[in-house]
Amino acid sequence: MKSYRKELWFQAPQRRQIIHITPQIEECLRESGIKEGLCLVNAMHITASVFINDNESGLHSDYERWLEKLAPEKPYDQYAHNGYEDNADAHLKRTIMGREVVVAVTNGKLDFGPWEAIFYYELDGKRQKRALVKIIGE
Amino acid sequence: MKSYRKELWFQAPQRRQIIHITPQIEECLRESGIKEGLCLVNAMHITASVFINDNESGLHSDYERWLEKLAPEKPYDQYAHNGYEDNADAHLKRTIMGREVVVAVTNGKLDFGPWEAIFYYELDGKRQKRALVKIIGE
Amino acid sequence: MKSYRKELWFQAPQRRQIIHITPQIEECLRESGIKEGLCLVNAMHITASVFINDNESGLHSDYERWLEKLAPEKPYDQYAHNGYEDNADAHLKRTIMGREVVVAVTNGKLDFGPWEAIFYYELDGKRQKRALVKIIGE
Repeated sequence: MKSYRKELWFQAPQRRQIIHITPQIEECLRESGIKEGLCLVNAMHITASVFINDNESGLHSDYERWLEKLAPEKPYDQYAHNGYEDNADAHLKRTIMGREVVVAVTNGKLDFGPWEAIFYYELDGKRQKRALVKIIGE
Repeated sequence: MKSYRKELWFQAPQRRQIIHITPQIEECLRESGIKEGLCLVNAMHITASVFINDNESGLHSDYERWLEKLAPEKPYDQYAHNGYEDNADAHLKRTIMGREVVVAVTNGKLDFGPWEAIFYYELDGKRQKRALVKIIGE
Repeated sequence: MKSYRKELWFQAPQRRQIIHITPQIEECLRESGIKEGLCLVNAMHITASVFINDNESGLHSDYERWLEKLAPEKPYDQYAHNGYEDNADAHLKRTIMGREVVVAVTNGKLDFGPWEAIFYYELDGKRQKRALVKIIGE
């Protein structure tokens, strides 16, 4: 069994940003030399998400509005977590979006349906943060 | 390490439908011959979900009503994604339900608790769509 | 390829409780002797969750209030599932929080970012329930 590990670093200039990372994950898979196995991609921070959906800007703005309705950023004092911080909403939004994805690796490719793409969703940005890529297989 | 791959095809006659697929996943596992490992089952489309919960029709109708409250289908023009399409709600509902499940394989069986069952949740049907089964192990 | 399996048992004295289980997962990983691979941790019951987020009590009370807003426990008769049971809300809350996490194993450690911690979230307690730990790798 082979294994491969890489950290992907991000610095979003604003609080929230959706970043398309499929090309970087494909590059990791090529580097790994793994042909059959599983590829885990997860946020290493608890106020960010890695998710799979459509690479379509309208949908991405829908996510923004929808998450803000389900877990509003403000007023900050509605959350017990916001004693010294202001990012409780980011923890909740990431819970909706998910921490991680697991993708099948087949014949050396990400085994994706026609519109699947991987995104890093920064929910509390303006600083350096990471996602982890771990691939195991043969 | 062995690996196994299969696509499961669905054609739901209506927009939304919950389809019980545990027997099909068990059949895949038998075909694979894998005794110890991990089994990934994921929707290959971004308006469908694979999830694990109870095989109980009351709960399934609760899901329908609950998802419609959290991410209503209509009015279609509330979503930026719905320029040429009408399925933004399906992308959001699938986000709540999740894209994939990972199940332990132990002694050649899905290593499930007493009530766990796997479902494909079609959220934008009336056409052919797929889920992927990938099993790795020995 | 090595594989390792363990059940973790819980008996929460109240209906809902968040239990920090990172130390138990680390102990499982040591027992497994696996240095490189993937670690799956999942609730074996469909009214409980395993999730990764911050080990901070304010956030945990925010989860309680937030989930109660998104999927209220009462009135019980708002849910079709609650014919003989009263736990439909627990099925929905667990759907938001997620059934499982998959964690990379690197150099014999859980490959975590700075604040990641694993929790079992009991959503319908007062009885014995289980989570499953499955680790595969080398």
